Amino acid sequence: MKRETGQPISDMSEPYYKYHLFFCTNQREPGAACCANHGSVRVREYAKQKIKELKLAGGGVRVNTAGCLDRCELGPVLVVYPEGTWYTYVDETDIDEIISEHLLHGRKVERLLI
Amino acid sequence: MKRETGQPISDMSEPYYKYHLFFCTNQREPGAACCANHGSVRVREYAKQKIKELKLAGGGVRVNTAGCLDRCELGPVLVVYPEGTWYTYVDETDIDEIISEHLLHGRKVERLLI
Repeated sequence: MKRETGQPISDMSEPYYKYHLFFCTNQREPGAACCANHGSVRVREYAKQKIKELKLAGGGVRVNTAGCLDRCELGPVLVVYPEGTWYTYVDETDIDEIISEHLLHGRKVERLLI
Repeated sequence: MKRETGQPISDMSEPYYKYHLFFCTNQREPGAACCANHGSVRVREYAKQKIKELKLAGGGVRVNTAGCLDRCELGPVLVVYPEGTWYTYVDETDIDEIISEHLLHGRKVERLLI
């Protein structure tokens, strides 16, 4: 990841993962809004598989599950670090777009930003 | 989080969480190195409780559990985003130091970096 001048020395090292994705897969009590109610476990698994197929792991992409990211009302959500881009999604089609646009071309998918 | 000049426009927005901590709490098969074998579940719970007591959540600190972060041999590990600082720890004492140094004063704990 290219760094700009003017940043503190301590921030100039390369990140361990270029794109580190965290999918909230938290299951809250019945009736409460939560990402798990929107297929987040299935979609996270899809993303992981797709990253593997595209051999993006070697390119510094890592997909993880996470506990509650505390943005339940906007869920299902995922966050891409280190840049801290937050997305919502409906299904696998949206994940394909995030992979092809954001991860492969470095372009944010504006319509899915939260 | 203060931003320096020279960064792209797209990176100039404030991160949703100032410090977003992810603890690997993955349990691998018996015999394999994994963070869960080093008390990561207990220590993550301690960190969460401590952040609550210190009322740091309102200051933009979030503690999450995560699946395998794939740095098992260096575990137990946690990562602080958005800066992408990776730490190991032995027990709650190290977490106290990460909280007081990194989260409260913005200073990395060099001896725990991986």
